[in-house]
Amino acid sequence: MGKTNIEALQLAEGVELSAAIVEPGSSLIGADAGELAGVGRLGVALVADLTSVLDDFDVLIDFTTPQATMENVALCAQHGKKIVIGTTGLTESQKSELKLRGRQIPIMFAPNMSVGVNVCFKVLDLIARTLGDDYDIEVIEAHHRHKVDSPSGTALRLGEVVADALGRDLKECAVYGREGQIGPRTRKEIGFETIRAGDVVGDHTVLFATEGERIELTHKASSRMTFAKGAVRAARWLGEQEPGLYDMQDVLGLR
Amino acid sequence: MGKTNIEALQLAEGVELSAAIVEPGSSLIGADAGELAGVGRLGVALVADLTSVLDDFDVLIDFTTPQATMENVALCAQHGKKIVIGTTGLTESQKSELKLRGRQIPIMFAPNMSVGVNVCFKVLDLIARTLGDDYDIEVIEAHHRHKVDSPSGTALRLGEVVADALGRDLKECAVYGREGQIGPRTRKEIGFETIRAGDVVGDHTVLFATEGERIELTHKASSRMTFAKGAVRAARWLGEQEPGLYDMQDVLGLR
Amino acid sequence: MGKTNIEALQLAEGVELSAAIVEPGSSLIGADAGELAGVGRLGVALVADLTSVLDDFDVLIDFTTPQATMENVALCAQHGKKIVIGTTGLTESQKSELKLRGRQIPIMFAPNMSVGVNVCFKVLDLIARTLGDDYDIEVIEAHHRHKVDSPSGTALRLGEVVADALGRDLKECAVYGREGQIGPRTRKEIGFETIRAGDVVGDHTVLFATEGERIELTHKASSRMTFAKGAVRAARWLGEQEPGLYDMQDVLGLR
Amino acid sequence: MGKTNIEALQLAEGVELSAAIVEPGSSLIGADAGELAGVGRLGVALVADLTSVLDDFDVLIDFTTPQATMENVALCAQHGKKIVIGTTGLTESQKSELKLRGRQIPIMFAPNMSVGVNVCFKVLDLIARTLGDDYDIEVIEAHHRHKVDSPSGTALRLGEVVADALGRDLKECAVYGREGQIGPRTRKEIGFETIRAGDVVGDHTVLFATEGERIELTHKASSRMTFAKGAVRAARWLGEQEPGLYDMQDVLGLR
Repeated sequence: MGKTNIEALQLAEGVELSAAIVEPGSSLIGADAGELAGVGRLGVALVADLTSVLDDFDVLIDFTTPQATMENVALCAQHGKKIVIGTTGLTESQKSELKLRGRQIPIMFAPNMSVGVNVCFKVLDLIARTLGDDYDIEVIEAHHRHKVDSPSGTALRLGEVVADALGRDLKECAVYGREGQIGPRTRKEIGFETIRAGDVVGDHTVLFATEGERIELTHKASSRMTFAKGAVRAARWLGEQEPGLYDMQDVLGLR
Repeated sequence: MGKTNIEALQLAEGVELSAAIVEPGSSLIGADAGELAGVGRLGVALVADLTSVLDDFDVLIDFTTPQATMENVALCAQHGKKIVIGTTGLTESQKSELKLRGRQIPIMFAPNMSVGVNVCFKVLDLIARTLGDDYDIEVIEAHHRHKVDSPSGTALRLGEVVADALGRDLKECAVYGREGQIGPRTRKEIGFETIRAGDVVGDHTVLFATEGERIELTHKASSRMTFAKGAVRAARWLGEQEPGLYDMQDVLGLR
Repeated sequence: MGKTNIEALQLAEGVELSAAIVEPGSSLIGADAGELAGVGRLGVALVADLTSVLDDFDVLIDFTTPQATMENVALCAQHGKKIVIGTTGLTESQKSELKLRGRQIPIMFAPNMSVGVNVCFKVLDLIARTLGDDYDIEVIEAHHRHKVDSPSGTALRLGEVVADALGRDLKECAVYGREGQIGPRTRKEIGFETIRAGDVVGDHTVLFATEGERIELTHKASSRMTFAKGAVRAARWLGEQEPGLYDMQDVLGLR
Repeated sequence: MGKTNIEALQLAEGVELSAAIVEPGSSLIGADAGELAGVGRLGVALVADLTSVLDDFDVLIDFTTPQATMENVALCAQHGKKIVIGTTGLTESQKSELKLRGRQIPIMFAPNMSVGVNVCFKVLDLIARTLGDDYDIEVIEAHHRHKVDSPSGTALRLGEVVADALGRDLKECAVYGREGQIGPRTRKEIGFETIRAGDVVGDHTVLFATEGERIELTHKASSRMTFAKGAVRAARWLGEQEPGLYDMQDVLGLR
């Protein structure tokens, strides 16, 4: 993600790369961050120690491990720095600590920083509330052949958003496959169709259908750039905020 | 549309067919409206004269001609009836008259009553405002081989909604075809791709794309049922309203 | 299907409606077949008895019941008439009888007469043989909310065609749903994703995907016209044939 | 392409990387080809001079410049080596030379080595011949915002294949955009809809539609891997061939 974040920074306006951190012991220490990312020399050398560059940046973008993230958050809080966190796998107690730290500094924490996916969450809520129970709902997703969980976390979240909007419990209305003489579709079920094939980065569609029409909302990720651009947008937004623990709905003004 | 409206009424709750009007001189006068629509006998005979059934209904659904519509509106206003109007081709002066009549009775007037299309208008505005100028926008639509205008009125309206949200003038940024060595896409253009083939009732997609992701919002009409269901929903909603001139955004609570 | 067949006949060249049969006792006997189908008066009155019009036609198109079909075949064989059969639900013994009757007259029998679906069968065989085992295969289909069996018969047949081409047994490699921590996709499985929603007439997609690319073959039915046009094409083709029992692959020259 | 070719070689069976050539003066000379491609150390050092590794390989894969390619072909012919050529921009006289060289050694030359695209060419010919003039044909393609030519070369080639199959001249029947009151679609036109947006690598769809059904054949490229895998498949196939000048239709057995 580091290289992709640098690439995204170069595409954006109003933000600038001023420091770049790699893990201690990396052979890349001292290399130019821009050359590493393939965007040309930027004059920012990779360092292993966050403390050595504390005077150089306003907002830290952190896609590391839960342990490294918590150390970085502590350091940022101590020095009044802001932080965007895309690290996954945080424990409940680590998340609680983020909440506390949010009283000291602005923190943006989101497991999926894709701007598009987060817009879809908001839009789906609006669509589902407007259409109501008259429309059948299906969530179709596709990922590469190596993905081990089905449906994807994002697909399940899309289903939850719709179920919540309609006052349903996804656990009770989700259907994950159809086979045999199973009779007509029940009106309140939400079907998931999970495609696994090739190198698909991640496609998600939510379908609403009734007599006379269908509405489909589709998100297609083509690379990790979707997360990096979200992180950069979050960093720019965070630069203007008061202390607090935020998520992407805040960043995008969709709250 | 009359037959389809009756079919849609049968599918809906909270509304009931209580009268059905055909043009004077029709051979269908006296026939049962339900049998005509293929939904079984409903005990409602077709009549040619609206005045003869004025005591039988609360809301009139009118898909006729501008002249017939204006006469019907006048009659409804005189007798305190509500009216849903799906007639197209009204002149500006006729539209002004609707506005005046809206002081007397509740009127819902919309050239496209599809619930799905109207949700898309609202949702597109939200998506475009959130994504901003970083995403390329294209409108892809498909209709049957007999359609004479390109792009469709709905496609143009979808483009306008997006252009308005982004502060662009569609007339200046619309592109209707690409051919030859035309160079890279300009950032602010909105492309229209118009497919004409077979018996396609009407598909519309608005695509937003940037590095790393695409978002697509698609509406597919499969029959005139999409309009009839919108008309019935509007009629049910109108039953609870005070006098005024409304459109589908009002009906759907999207204003 | 009768009305749709008449409509399809009007669209085609080289064929003409010369007789039209309804069930005995129908209130439609004597009515004009063209007016019934909404294509204008054709001067062909509906009759209840096939024997009364035996001098009027060359090829019979039969979408009835197994019993009626077998009687019609016998009558056609006796009088040297050709017959296109779209009736479903024939027993094995009835199918054997068709084979025998095929020694006397040209018979075209196919449970699905859609030209497009039959082209897809042929094309899929070619694609699968060329791509080989390197591509993951998934079959995605969508039908209306009332359909009781999953996946559709056509989806299963599409899967069989691909499995046969690759020397696999569909019973062993078919997967009908994915849920939970199920691990990466196995290379030889063929996944089925079955969407049930709204009024979808019938969409089928076969997806082939590997690193770097996807190929999708999609068929979308929009009305029974797809079967009627296939029946009419078969009738025209059958007019030139020697006795034999044929199917749509023969009609389309894809054998 | 070099790195991607090495990656593709690692995924394939029956072929092995035995030499890797870079341009003279490159700072990468001497580096391990596998490490460069991110697939782990392979024990094959990059060299600048083809003559120094002539004993190490059977088939050369060449994605370079016309001049370098012609030199490589001459060297291969002299030493009885086989060659797969993916270089674009060859002049007519260079292509003629390839033909002559094909008398000495097996050469596979194709401007687009994607297996999927080449299968589509063959399949489209079959579909178009079977469906005939009754189906409307449209070619829809999407590429990233930086692409300068419209429609893509592949889209035009897809259109040509279909036009040829139906006895039409693409130059006369192609339509590149639709705007205004242009009347109903003519039956023999082939429409092109060209989408330019975001980072789309390359999507192509050919649509056939008539009353009752649509057939769509879609190819989606997700990376240059689609070309590299075709090159590797060609190299493996070429290993078994007699001298001759071949293309991808030969490699895939679709001739």
